[in-house]
Amino acid sequence: MTICALATAPGGAIGIIRISGSKTLEILSHVFSKNILEAQPNTIHYGHIKDGVEIIDEVLVSVFRAPHSYTGEDSAEISCHGSRYILNKVIELLIQNGCRMAQPGEFTQRAFLNGKMDLSQAEAVADLIASTNKATHQMAMSQLRGEISTELSRLREQLLKLTSLLELELDFSDHEDLEFADRSELLELTKTIDSHITGLAHSFEKGQALKQGIPVAIAGKTNVGKSTLLNRLLKDDRAIVSDIHGTTRDTIEDTIDIQGVTFRFIDTAGIRQTTDEVEQIGISRTYATIEKARIVLWLLDAEPMPEELQEIQEHCKDKSLIIIINKKDKLLESSTQELSSRLSPLASHLLTISAKFDTNLNDLESAIYLAADIPSIRENDIIVTNARHYDSLTRAHSHLLRVLDGLSNNLSGDLLSEDLRLTLDTLAEITGGQITSNEVLGNIFKNFCVGK
Amino acid sequence: MTICALATAPGGAIGIIRISGSKTLEILSHVFSKNILEAQPNTIHYGHIKDGVEIIDEVLVSVFRAPHSYTGEDSAEISCHGSRYILNKVIELLIQNGCRMAQPGEFTQRAFLNGKMDLSQAEAVADLIASTNKATHQMAMSQLRGEISTELSRLREQLLKLTSLLELELDFSDHEDLEFADRSELLELTKTIDSHITGLAHSFEKGQALKQGIPVAIAGKTNVGKSTLLNRLLKDDRAIVSDIHGTTRDTIEDTIDIQGVTFRFIDTAGIRQTTDEVEQIGISRTYATIEKARIVLWLLDAEPMPEELQEIQEHCKDKSLIIIINKKDKLLESSTQELSSRLSPLASHLLTISAKFDTNLNDLESAIYLAADIPSIRENDIIVTNARHYDSLTRAHSHLLRVLDGLSNNLSGDLLSEDLRLTLDTLAEITGGQITSNEVLGNIFKNFCVGK
Repeated sequence: MTICALATAPGGAIGIIRISGSKTLEILSHVFSKNILEAQPNTIHYGHIKDGVEIIDEVLVSVFRAPHSYTGEDSAEISCHGSRYILNKVIELLIQNGCRMAQPGEFTQRAFLNGKMDLSQAEAVADLIASTNKATHQMAMSQLRGEISTELSRLREQLLKLTSLLELELDFSDHEDLEFADRSELLELTKTIDSHITGLAHSFEKGQALKQGIPVAIAGKTNVGKSTLLNRLLKDDRAIVSDIHGTTRDTIEDTIDIQGVTFRFIDTAGIRQTTDEVEQIGISRTYATIEKARIVLWLLDAEPMPEELQEIQEHCKDKSLIIIINKKDKLLESSTQELSSRLSPLASHLLTISAKFDTNLNDLESAIYLAADIPSIRENDIIVTNARHYDSLTRAHSHLLRVLDGLSNNLSGDLLSEDLRLTLDTLAEITGGQITSNEVLGNIFKNFCVGK
Repeated sequence: MTICALATAPGGAIGIIRISGSKTLEILSHVFSKNILEAQPNTIHYGHIKDGVEIIDEVLVSVFRAPHSYTGEDSAEISCHGSRYILNKVIELLIQNGCRMAQPGEFTQRAFLNGKMDLSQAEAVADLIASTNKATHQMAMSQLRGEISTELSRLREQLLKLTSLLELELDFSDHEDLEFADRSELLELTKTIDSHITGLAHSFEKGQALKQGIPVAIAGKTNVGKSTLLNRLLKDDRAIVSDIHGTTRDTIEDTIDIQGVTFRFIDTAGIRQTTDEVEQIGISRTYATIEKARIVLWLLDAEPMPEELQEIQEHCKDKSLIIIINKKDKLLESSTQELSSRLSPLASHLLTISAKFDTNLNDLESAIYLAADIPSIRENDIIVTNARHYDSLTRAHSHLLRVLDGLSNNLSGDLLSEDLRLTLDTLAEITGGQITSNEVLGNIFKNFCVGK
């Protein structure tokens, strides 16, 4: 079936309508003023879209031929004036002449089904379109360029090698005089493979953080200046936020981008001893927020009491902790220094800022960026950002654990082979090699935008 | 200077970045992975946009060559994934490599300056993009296809003929024995030209109404069911409204499209005798609304009192009046008929509808459509929709009036020639023949969207 959809957002100067399927050019020939049935691939044609004698628009039609198109099928793009009336009318005409309206992601799904890309690459297309900053863009681009696929095919080769070694052992198990691969060697190989798989799985947490914004809690006693600090951080960056997030600014309004990475700031209720029940609920929420955060900014405006130090130690022990000393008049230079040396062991970063935060905001941003441990994301690092991939990796890991266990306990090769096969199949789900169910595919593509 | 801009609305699957100017391909060669310096016109090229070694996106680049492009210059379109990050980054790269960000409408302005279209056609591009229904689309398309320009050049020919006849008279004025064109003939020709000009000018009111929606006031006594009728009209059409207007629905929420024409409904305060000052203000606003409306729906739920009949006669005498009898139980069939025959002479249309408006809504819509006198907009009718054109036509008419006056008063040909020249120049403003000032051009194009 030949499908069509608007591929651009409504409202611009230009609107692009995409068509894909074997009847693309035949359907177009009924509504386009020029004969493009014999058009060369990758050529552009100026003419009119017509409804009978009525001219709907002056357009450019781009012609693509199977298999050298995005979907792998014959396809075309109509570049119209961006009037909603025109775009609706052209789509209506295409449907009248035999097109069907495309489902979300259906063009990319066809690209996958026609072997133009594997499933993880297809998923990267949606991530690429949704990317809002350098980090998410880079992860999506790496996945689109098949870097996860390449890594997985490397793991697949090693797993196949392991399988063949075990099968060799199996086939010749009667020949007691033959020497096979040492089981300890097989164990080493399996451990290496597993460490790669768990490494990929572990990257998911970081990938998710980068995708959704790294959570940063701002904590401290009441009235220490937390909200002022938050506003200052947001305000100085609001222009950038607006530049990059645009219309979503209103809903994710507490994020800022630092060096191309999104941080999600959560202001918390101030911590103090209280018998007020409502306030106690607020404070326990503060602890919950700190628990979920990756980075905690703990704000002090005076020398902390021993119980506050205990709070910090207790609640932030697994966190990247940045202690901020809000240097007010009551804190003398000498006491600040003394305080700093006492707090240093607690925190990964320690900053002194002015009462109104006019200075050192840049240092604070750098500290936040460093605390997020971003340097480990390099050009060639593979970061898993997709929950489906994470799920497959985790299951592959559990299958491999049974292989490891079997190897250690000298289980026979045929039992091990079964778990190895499951590991291979589970990894293959990521690139789509083992996915044939339409339902599963439908679930993967349903979150795409229409027209892609 | 080579210019670039995003030509699509942000947020779709695909984003198109447009470039135009002599350095288009040279600038592209610095950021595109393929050599397209020698690319054939109207061809599409797949490759990467790169920032040094970093890949920003996989794109399609369409190449157009002067003079066979929209602007008449070398130009290109980059079809990117619709991520805001990617689109910003690509534009940033183009600017770093020598492009300048385009002003609103600058591509179309260049098309005009390079003789690809006249000024009224350029203006039609903006109207076409803004068109939301069949009527506005048809007017813009007719203008884009040069129908106004053709009509004006026909008028120009006639004016030039008039001028030459007058000059002939002038050149040979010494030869008293020669016969010249009869002044009464010249008078007839001038009158014909003027009637065409005023005809065009008069079409502006209709054009404006169609562009902005034809104003329809709903009037009648209090509690006669005006708001219910409005809601019923809007509700039944809300799906269509949403289909065509989309995001503008919230701001122009009281419009419906009937047979491709937008009607703007204005509910009014009910009219009754009152001493309440606030209510009186409301009622005087009702009269003002009726004054501005083109069509008035006057709703009756019982036999009108003589003073209401007087109100109707007084306030609706220049309007297309539709009287609606809301047939409630108290109105017997016989009395309805009797009422109808009494009201018929007042209204252009008279309808009886059921208490809950369940019936006859279609008849009402047809009556509204007929009352708008739309049938006079046919395929080949020229409708002026642009205030600038209207202004020029009005001034051309006043110059021509002086010509008519001079002809009647036997003024000498050289005095008439001056006014004829002014008429010609004023008409030429519409297609841009007489516009050389950048300021004027800037004003015309500043309301365009960027990227067109």
